[in-house]
Amino acid sequence: MQIPSLIESKRDGHALTDEQIRAVIQAYTAGDMPDYQMSALAMAIFFKGMSGEETAALTEAMLRSGTVLHWPADAPMRVDKHSTGGIGDKTSLVLAPLLACDGLWVPMISGRGLGITGGTLDKLDSIPGFRTQLSESEIYKTLPITGCLMVGQTANLCPADKKLYALRDVTGTIQSIPLLTSSIMGKKLAEGLNRLILDVKYGSGAFMQTREQAHELAESLVNVGRALGVRSSVRLSPMDEPTGESAGNALEVIECIRCLQGKGPADLENLVLDLACAVSISSREELKRMLMDGRAWAKFQHMVTVQGGKADRLERLHAIHAAPVIHEMKADRSGTLTRLDAGAVGRAVLALGAGRSKASDPVDPAVGVDRLRKVGQEIKAGEVLLRIHARSQAAAEAAQSQIAAGVKIE
Amino acid sequence: MQIPSLIESKRDGHALTDEQIRAVIQAYTAGDMPDYQMSALAMAIFFKGMSGEETAALTEAMLRSGTVLHWPADAPMRVDKHSTGGIGDKTSLVLAPLLACDGLWVPMISGRGLGITGGTLDKLDSIPGFRTQLSESEIYKTLPITGCLMVGQTANLCPADKKLYALRDVTGTIQSIPLLTSSIMGKKLAEGLNRLILDVKYGSGAFMQTREQAHELAESLVNVGRALGVRSSVRLSPMDEPTGESAGNALEVIECIRCLQGKGPADLENLVLDLACAVSISSREELKRMLMDGRAWAKFQHMVTVQGGKADRLERLHAIHAAPVIHEMKADRSGTLTRLDAGAVGRAVLALGAGRSKASDPVDPAVGVDRLRKVGQEIKAGEVLLRIHARSQAAAEAAQSQIAAGVKIE
Repeated sequence: MQIPSLIESKRDGHALTDEQIRAVIQAYTAGDMPDYQMSALAMAIFFKGMSGEETAALTEAMLRSGTVLHWPADAPMRVDKHSTGGIGDKTSLVLAPLLACDGLWVPMISGRGLGITGGTLDKLDSIPGFRTQLSESEIYKTLPITGCLMVGQTANLCPADKKLYALRDVTGTIQSIPLLTSSIMGKKLAEGLNRLILDVKYGSGAFMQTREQAHELAESLVNVGRALGVRSSVRLSPMDEPTGESAGNALEVIECIRCLQGKGPADLENLVLDLACAVSISSREELKRMLMDGRAWAKFQHMVTVQGGKADRLERLHAIHAAPVIHEMKADRSGTLTRLDAGAVGRAVLALGAGRSKASDPVDPAVGVDRLRKVGQEIKAGEVLLRIHARSQAAAEAAQSQIAAGVKIE
Repeated sequence: MQIPSLIESKRDGHALTDEQIRAVIQAYTAGDMPDYQMSALAMAIFFKGMSGEETAALTEAMLRSGTVLHWPADAPMRVDKHSTGGIGDKTSLVLAPLLACDGLWVPMISGRGLGITGGTLDKLDSIPGFRTQLSESEIYKTLPITGCLMVGQTANLCPADKKLYALRDVTGTIQSIPLLTSSIMGKKLAEGLNRLILDVKYGSGAFMQTREQAHELAESLVNVGRALGVRSSVRLSPMDEPTGESAGNALEVIECIRCLQGKGPADLENLVLDLACAVSISSREELKRMLMDGRAWAKFQHMVTVQGGKADRLERLHAIHAAPVIHEMKADRSGTLTRLDAGAVGRAVLALGAGRSKASDPVDPAVGVDRLRKVGQEIKAGEVLLRIHARSQAAAEAAQSQIAAGVKIE
């Protein structure tokens, strides 16, 4: 295979064959194709795109670059959700146990946060003892016990994606629909799924700024899922204000526990039920009942215990991860809250220490925001708009002024 | 400097600042910017182009990455020509001594052939003893003696271009006007020139297939020359049939000697005089006289001698580099020769062994074609169309059938 002429072919807008795509990913994973050719190809793909067929072939090549989980023929349906990430987006922690209550298996492989969006694994790390790094054989042993698990990528899962994503991150080639699609779907389909719901976010707190971009990515994701034999559906979610009432690692787990106990908040609960309906055959009412009657909460505690976590500490997380400063941000006027910008909240929470600017940054479990008021609510001057959990008064004040720029009361 | 955001900026169509361009080339030359980021940037430049100002800044950065020749303030005007390369394009060997006869200095730094176009250094290698690798101090010593010299790139000349060109060659990023411009002009301007004539070829035997592409490159080259203070002009030359009557290393030197002795062929002589007029203040008639009265031929012999070559062997090159097989290709019908395709001839000559498919290939000085008939001439069936000089009968026949596909007699 002549790599330079293959790059030129894509550069000139021609489609690559399945065989060429497979050969490229194999050569790249084996170290036979150097990074400088892959980054040039990625940039050519950025500009010229890929057909649905090419994107499916690329995803399959990524998937096949490592281990794919195989489940017994008589195992329950495997389902999962992938979200493109948003501020306060914590649905996974509620959704996985809920779907497991419904008799489905949820072998959820998650990631860490990068930039303003949080990561499920970082949130789970705030649960004392909880182990997110299970080996493949532990995954096979654990899932039949609980019906759900939440773990990080194993070493052998999509090694091509690990290498390519790190390269794209430093060569301006992240924002490409076919490359995003193959990265997301390669990892998810390696779980050995039957059904997948994709939660594609758009808006100030999301990766995709406009609904059109989100729609384009959503279509590409669903098409690849179908091409590779996984029933995939999609939900486009606006991400102009944060999801739920908190953002930050332990603070979000605390909110999820409340939601698992059937106590809302409403927007989080609705989003979880929407996503659950897409992959379950149970009705929304049945699913809601599992949330209300404590079954989902019990399942979550069981999963935490099986993965090494101390379930008896779950209701004391606010004390375990207490930030030194809890600052109340108050409304400076009365009226309707018309804007509480997700991007502004995300940047403030990142600056407080809850997220990462680069992959090697440590994450602070205690900091963030909670008791967020929601857009559309009536607010009186002097009422608490949200609380800021910070390491210092100065950090809290910096966060407050960042958030204030994104607040509108009319 | 954040390289990823700089790549994204170019990817999104923004202009880079002079400072950014300088920093990129410095970092890349020093090994502080990895190849995989440079190839992604080169691909972004391929798609988004560069303004005239950016291209000039890039050229200057390439130029300044290494040594620039400096000449005394009272030295004669330094002039040179650059051709983008074509089949049988041998003008340098006649032009350099001719311009030196005119009192100009021609510090001509040339390249080797790659693909179907030949390289001046490969042609000169067929002259016994001729040394093309002079050190910088030898260049400074030699030029005042002869007024012209023909050498290869020294180690310190445009190291950024050496590294970047090798990378572009394997990442599908050769064919970009600003990148071509900075590569060509960086090397030429490092000679310390006052005037430059650019011979931009287009057609089947050239790098640029259409006149429009050639025009675009020509404009870019001239603009950069002017921006960097060198009076630059351009000639667009069609390259649909080979220049002159031969293609191949020793065969072209033999033709040049004939031209330097005032014996044509007409198209080569005219092209040389056109190019000479563009950088000389002498008239075409005066320049032609220097070619006719033996001055240019004497100057060439002097240059050969000073560069270590055996001038007394020049008129015996046909015997020194005699190919085992000389095959006459004959016209199969009578009529006007309307096509003798330069691309077909170039590919045949490359296959005979006169050129390189990759940089490390050896070159055969003896093989090629000569006695080429010219488009527009009347030909009788059975007359010799051209001669093929080959290592074997089989090679000659293969060349004949390649060339035959590009011949039309009507």
